[in-house]
Amino acid sequence: MFDILGFIELKRDGGRHSGNDLRDFVNLVRDGCVPDYQISAWLMAAFLRGLDDGELAEFTKALALSGDVVTLPAGCRAVDKHSTGGVGDKTTLVAGPLAASCGLPVAKLSGRGLGFTGGTVDKLESIPGMNMRLDSDRFARQIGKIGIAMSGHSLKLAPAEGKFYTLRGVTGTVPSIPLIASSIVSKKISGGANAFVFDVKCGLGAFMRTEESASELASALVSLSNALGKKSSCVVSDMEQPLGRWAGNSVEVMEALRVLSGDGPDDTASLSLTLASMMLVAGGVARDLDAASALASKKLSSGEALAKFEEMVSSQGGDASVCANPERVLPRAVGEKTIFSPGDGFIGRMDALAVGHAVRALGGGRVRGGDRIDPSVGVGTLKKIGDAVSKGEPIFEIRYNDEKRLEAALPHIAQAFSVVGGAERRPLILGKAACQDAR
Amino acid sequence: MFDILGFIELKRDGGRHSGNDLRDFVNLVRDGCVPDYQISAWLMAAFLRGLDDGELAEFTKALALSGDVVTLPAGCRAVDKHSTGGVGDKTTLVAGPLAASCGLPVAKLSGRGLGFTGGTVDKLESIPGMNMRLDSDRFARQIGKIGIAMSGHSLKLAPAEGKFYTLRGVTGTVPSIPLIASSIVSKKISGGANAFVFDVKCGLGAFMRTEESASELASALVSLSNALGKKSSCVVSDMEQPLGRWAGNSVEVMEALRVLSGDGPDDTASLSLTLASMMLVAGGVARDLDAASALASKKLSSGEALAKFEEMVSSQGGDASVCANPERVLPRAVGEKTIFSPGDGFIGRMDALAVGHAVRALGGGRVRGGDRIDPSVGVGTLKKIGDAVSKGEPIFEIRYNDEKRLEAALPHIAQAFSVVGGAERRPLILGKAACQDAR
Repeated sequence: MFDILGFIELKRDGGRHSGNDLRDFVNLVRDGCVPDYQISAWLMAAFLRGLDDGELAEFTKALALSGDVVTLPAGCRAVDKHSTGGVGDKTTLVAGPLAASCGLPVAKLSGRGLGFTGGTVDKLESIPGMNMRLDSDRFARQIGKIGIAMSGHSLKLAPAEGKFYTLRGVTGTVPSIPLIASSIVSKKISGGANAFVFDVKCGLGAFMRTEESASELASALVSLSNALGKKSSCVVSDMEQPLGRWAGNSVEVMEALRVLSGDGPDDTASLSLTLASMMLVAGGVARDLDAASALASKKLSSGEALAKFEEMVSSQGGDASVCANPERVLPRAVGEKTIFSPGDGFIGRMDALAVGHAVRALGGGRVRGGDRIDPSVGVGTLKKIGDAVSKGEPIFEIRYNDEKRLEAALPHIAQAFSVVGGAERRPLILGKAACQDAR
Repeated sequence: MFDILGFIELKRDGGRHSGNDLRDFVNLVRDGCVPDYQISAWLMAAFLRGLDDGELAEFTKALALSGDVVTLPAGCRAVDKHSTGGVGDKTTLVAGPLAASCGLPVAKLSGRGLGFTGGTVDKLESIPGMNMRLDSDRFARQIGKIGIAMSGHSLKLAPAEGKFYTLRGVTGTVPSIPLIASSIVSKKISGGANAFVFDVKCGLGAFMRTEESASELASALVSLSNALGKKSSCVVSDMEQPLGRWAGNSVEVMEALRVLSGDGPDDTASLSLTLASMMLVAGGVARDLDAASALASKKLSSGEALAKFEEMVSSQGGDASVCANPERVLPRAVGEKTIFSPGDGFIGRMDALAVGHAVRALGGGRVRGGDRIDPSVGVGTLKKIGDAVSKGEPIFEIRYNDEKRLEAALPHIAQAFSVVGGAERRPLILGKAACQDAR
């Protein structure tokens, strides 16, 4: 019989768990055989004492294998892409179809969307008819057939991870790099892909506030994936200000379609291209980032990337005419309000967190897990940090459905920005963790 | 509203709790308003990060005041005595009446008896009719009237402590000196006494295995009591081998009565006299240990100490003729088995833990909280470490009621001792923590 007390005491005293013990523990947690108070005592001990690389790999593997694992068609070596979440981050909607249009199988699974704004699942669900709850078989079949699928993370994948995730949120054991890395990588592994590309967001609107912690997580994600036999690479990108122009759900799909048509904001286009290139290298389709970037750029301008998006929407039951007529197909909020610059100068602050709060206040994000979101609302950020503005020039466009919600959102917008005498533009990509060869 | 997550995170990050926060936390735990998983995450954080002296005092006070507090009659400044528990430790039954016979009010509350053998409550309950579940009022009244009462610890006293105690046992957070000290001292404080004498047992048969950890706990108990305005002192005594001759329940009452009659084993008599003397000094009845010891010795030889025991038994509904006729009044097991020395030499080992396991196997102790115990069984240890023995000389006497239980007990006895070429006798008292003046 598994000695749960001895297991907790070992970590409490700074000892090292065996792979067998970690697997037994994870499976007992999955089966509901370990009371919450013992799981959380272990979590706090692991938080404070740490898990070494070997333990972390074994723990992550045990989480990944605690339930179903997606089996892709024979010979299909797919890539998954993961962002730690930010405001206005619609790069998945661009980089996924773009990489797939270059011949790389893309198996994108999205986790719980509990950030300020919706997740990839919520965004794509704003397309009428779009099914974002594919079961493992259908997910795998679609990748075999058209080379790409995007779906919400089924509860049957890595079920033990879900239990740890929930408990960590209520026991003060969230901000631990090893535990965060194991949570992310275990879910990626259960999704069946062979290589991963991570985008760790850094700044006010991100989970990681400092470059130091973001870089630490980036390294942990790459080395953990590598230790488990999955090739991976990671970018650290700025989330001090929102990404692109729009934050919301349907508004972000619209912007992604614009980027896929060669007409989107520079930052979103550039980061999406970088991520797609990293995916192509990780998946072995291109030999280096330059070659990957050249190939992807070609597919973008030829319209093949947009066509791949259309094919995916169609295959998942969505209204594929969204690509040709996004304004007609996507829901749009009835009210519009513009916020103007109070003076001349430069944008000194454009707080991604405050914009995220505003989107949530409008109904575009969740406060609790089960909340319904309004896909049609959103906040448009017309200026970036360092941009010159004149008094009376529009800075924000707000799309809303409900006056009361607008009122709740406005204070967030009011404190989201400042106009100052001078300000530097910010770099978008802060760092990269080397793409390592998996063992 | 109390921010429980912030509270956990503060301790996780090595911060310091305010007295108000500790009090709020303890009261919310008492009221069932904090889920177990959050209490245990905090316990592990407090275990690994520690509590400083100020936090420990505030936490202990909050535990002590989380329920009823015994109110002794006006002007009655009583002393309580606490042992951390050992095999054959019946000193409370001697030192209590002895100190009371010297004019010191003795308010003895006993905690949960979950050791190998029974606790003071179980031992005294082997006297027919003896009521060891006095409510606070009756407990206080009896002390006012005859100067002594002994009772089990009511659940109404320090109820929050009970919740922490239970959770610590199942989350690997027991062996923390600050948490142990706060658990002991909070219950003592809720019992209403003004001064405490502690006996920290040390060795194989004790919770504290090393002199170092026992001394650390002794200091913590004295300084914590002192910080909370209670005068106290502490002895560290040997528990490598059982104390006295008998371990069990009725057999220990019998031995205590023998010591009170001037006829018991030296080690029990000597430690009881030391403890009674420390109580007299702590309670202000004697000015120093020498004066206290002289006074107590006089009361012992005059028969007044035994008379005080008799008075207490009678007042708590017990058969007071137990003092005159212990063999007739106390239950006695039907079977007897003697274990003989396998050779000539000296006792090298006399393992208190193994003897304790044997007593429990016979039915004299509990495996789980609700188990009934058999008061009549016991193990008599006829030799001490360092004693000379000849082949065939009796070493143990076992009193049992059930052959199967005897069979389960014998392997423990077999490995409890060794006969070797030579061995030193062990000192009984290993150290003392200075009796400090309370602030």
